Amino acid sequence: MTDESLTDLRRRIEKLVENGAVEELQETLTKLHPSDIADLFPRLERLEQNFVWDLIPDEISHDVLVELDDPAQEQLLDHLTEGEIGQLVEELDSDDAADVIGALDEDKARKVLDSMDHESQREVRQLLTYDEETAGGIMALEVASVKESDTVRDAVERLRDLVENEGIEDIYNVYIIAEDGRLCGALNLRQFILAPPETSVSKLMDTDIISVTTAMDQEEVANLFRKYDLVSVPVVDDFGRLAGRITVDDIVDVLAEEAEEDLSIIAGTRDEEPTEQATLKVFWQRFPWLLVALVGGIVAASVIHHFEATLMKIIALAFFVPVITAMGGSTAMQASSIVVRGLATGEIEMRDLLPRIFREIRVGLLNGLVLGIVLGVIVALWLQQVNLGLLLGFTLLLNICFASLLGAAVPIMMKRIGIDPALAMGPFVTSAIDVIGLLIYLGFAMLVLL
Amino acid sequence: MTDESLTDLRRRIEKLVENGAVEELQETLTKLHPSDIADLFPRLERLEQNFVWDLIPDEISHDVLVELDDPAQEQLLDHLTEGEIGQLVEELDSDDAADVIGALDEDKARKVLDSMDHESQREVRQLLTYDEETAGGIMALEVASVKESDTVRDAVERLRDLVENEGIEDIYNVYIIAEDGRLCGALNLRQFILAPPETSVSKLMDTDIISVTTAMDQEEVANLFRKYDLVSVPVVDDFGRLAGRITVDDIVDVLAEEAEEDLSIIAGTRDEEPTEQATLKVFWQRFPWLLVALVGGIVAASVIHHFEATLMKIIALAFFVPVITAMGGSTAMQASSIVVRGLATGEIEMRDLLPRIFREIRVGLLNGLVLGIVLGVIVALWLQQVNLGLLLGFTLLLNICFASLLGAAVPIMMKRIGIDPALAMGPFVTSAIDVIGLLIYLGFAMLVLL
Repeated sequence: MTDESLTDLRRRIEKLVENGAVEELQETLTKLHPSDIADLFPRLERLEQNFVWDLIPDEISHDVLVELDDPAQEQLLDHLTEGEIGQLVEELDSDDAADVIGALDEDKARKVLDSMDHESQREVRQLLTYDEETAGGIMALEVASVKESDTVRDAVERLRDLVENEGIEDIYNVYIIAEDGRLCGALNLRQFILAPPETSVSKLMDTDIISVTTAMDQEEVANLFRKYDLVSVPVVDDFGRLAGRITVDDIVDVLAEEAEEDLSIIAGTRDEEPTEQATLKVFWQRFPWLLVALVGGIVAASVIHHFEATLMKIIALAFFVPVITAMGGSTAMQASSIVVRGLATGEIEMRDLLPRIFREIRVGLLNGLVLGIVLGVIVALWLQQVNLGLLLGFTLLLNICFASLLGAAVPIMMKRIGIDPALAMGPFVTSAIDVIGLLIYLGFAMLVLL
Repeated sequence: MTDESLTDLRRRIEKLVENGAVEELQETLTKLHPSDIADLFPRLERLEQNFVWDLIPDEISHDVLVELDDPAQEQLLDHLTEGEIGQLVEELDSDDAADVIGALDEDKARKVLDSMDHESQREVRQLLTYDEETAGGIMALEVASVKESDTVRDAVERLRDLVENEGIEDIYNVYIIAEDGRLCGALNLRQFILAPPETSVSKLMDTDIISVTTAMDQEEVANLFRKYDLVSVPVVDDFGRLAGRITVDDIVDVLAEEAEEDLSIIAGTRDEEPTEQATLKVFWQRFPWLLVALVGGIVAASVIHHFEATLMKIIALAFFVPVITAMGGSTAMQASSIVVRGLATGEIEMRDLLPRIFREIRVGLLNGLVLGIVLGVIVALWLQQVNLGLLLGFTLLLNICFASLLGAAVPIMMKRIGIDPALAMGPFVTSAIDVIGLLIYLGFAMLVLL
């Protein structure tokens, strides 16, 4: 379903809603993939949404709910009763169920849980105990496992039962459990198809398996998927017992989320969704970052204020304030973006602090030298002031070296003390670099030119 | 393999290399996953790398080659002869083979291709005709397909043959080909296991399948995987014939790549890898962006220069130059990062230009009002100049609204004319916003205060 046809579809559905053509609308919805309905949903008016929701076939409404983006899901959940949400959630895989219930406020979540059957309730409560951004928080409890003593034939029987009676879909790997309950091996489906039915699974199984613990950070889990090209990974508890599994479709979401998270930390847009329409909500999401930038700007202003006398004598110094701040900001951004990326993928380790700083300073020296000469020559020719040119060239070099140092060091140090290193690309560090750059620039100007 | 044990491993291997303990080293390497060896590789010295490479067991050396990051792979390929590369590449899946050969210079690539067997050569040449960032560029030709007229039993036979004789691994879906050669359906492996052997595949197959064309952009392909939770997708040519398939492990790489690409476009670090050590190379990758920022800064300097007379009369105007540039930059970054993200996921369409601009201006007005009042009051109290406070409050409001407008509009317009919208977050637009902000600020100051 491309963007083009999604827009056409929206027009058609809007027309059907306007005309109250219930039957035709129902027929259209039945033919659509749940993800397509979910894509369409945020683009409808509030009342149209409610009208359309009631016409979505029961078999797919829970899938639509899961695929909705956050603001649309929140709106819809507001509109549904606890009993209705409970019914929808019971149809979901345990991980999706826990996500939906975890997004509700506490009171509503309790009521929804109370309305669910005992087994689903227990599963969701268990999953809700894990931190959202860990392996436990993204795993599903539905997992295909067989006993070490089974033959391939027994195992296929067991799988058939799981698919038919427990609704386990998307089986990529079958996990093998030892007598003592610990995870001891895995088999992929291809091996099942190709093996003679009488073979024991313990003969076939791969015992050198990659597993993760419930407490592992989701970004680390994603790195493992990426590194080893996995499609699913078993999650074990502290005793090595199989607790659940994570499939690659969840990892695709984690990767997209982490990328968005970094960007939203840099820009300060927090959890804002591109489809969010409420002005006040967007305002509150963005305001804190802008306030930090404003405070940073005022500190920079007070630095310049401090050098007022110098500025009065050589007004041309004021012209180059944007050059100093722009260059410092750009340089720090380059150094920190590489470090943040490397820390996320594990290519840079926390112990790499010193070599990294040396590398960045080498690059900074080279860039500072070339750009300093360029700026110095331009200023000397433009304003016919060789001294000012020399000053600017030299302070730009210093500024770029300092910005390289901070850009590389700050994210590593943040990670060491447990702060998200992406914050180093936000306005805190940028403001600090503006202030340091201006101190270097105006401080040298005062010393040298006056 | 965690970071910790990777470091220990490196130390152990370095020691083994130092002592020339060939046998023990070989034994250690045999036990490692190719991805772990690839992770370790860039952290060894050049000579150690060559020594270790020769000791990697032949069965896994091609896997190690593929898993290396770009600078390490490039270094290694420089060190190998065309014949050696040809032998390694023949062992690879067609998509990985094309990636390796595509990274060589033209002359070396031709020699490597000439050294390969006819069939592999043909495959790689075919794959190299597709644009690297399209479905054709990331697909593999190894695909499990059966005929529409086959029974499940025939199909399983055919699959067994593919796995044993053609080395096709990672089968998630089996594609069904109609008489006329067009792709007409798909079955997943689970359906194979559970179906009676005599059933015709045409009875079981899913005909409502999602496929992509060879020319589709890889980011769009990734969006489909994400939206529909796919593990593999068939790629068809212009005539609807099965050309290859894309598996989710490639999509995991695409997603990670696109996220890195956006970040590197914003910061201007281009293809730089976190592990890259060559100072001169890093310098050349980063220099162009800094030069753009420098030119932007010099234009901003000339704007301030233009208002020199105003500045001479009210020197305090100079203090707030960093406030104006920082606020404009931060605001534009917020608006553009949301738009760039929305465009990438399809949540924002190109036709959404006007509603998006209105939304951003509403948010900008609100932020501008609140922050304008904060700044105005601070300035009025600090410098005891009510007029200057009013001017700054008002120009900050205007500045934030303008930055919101540009931040939202520029990426959409860039996408319309076929430029990567992420470029809107780079120094071009930031510089333009600095210049516009300063023109508003100093222009109003001249009109109002003098």
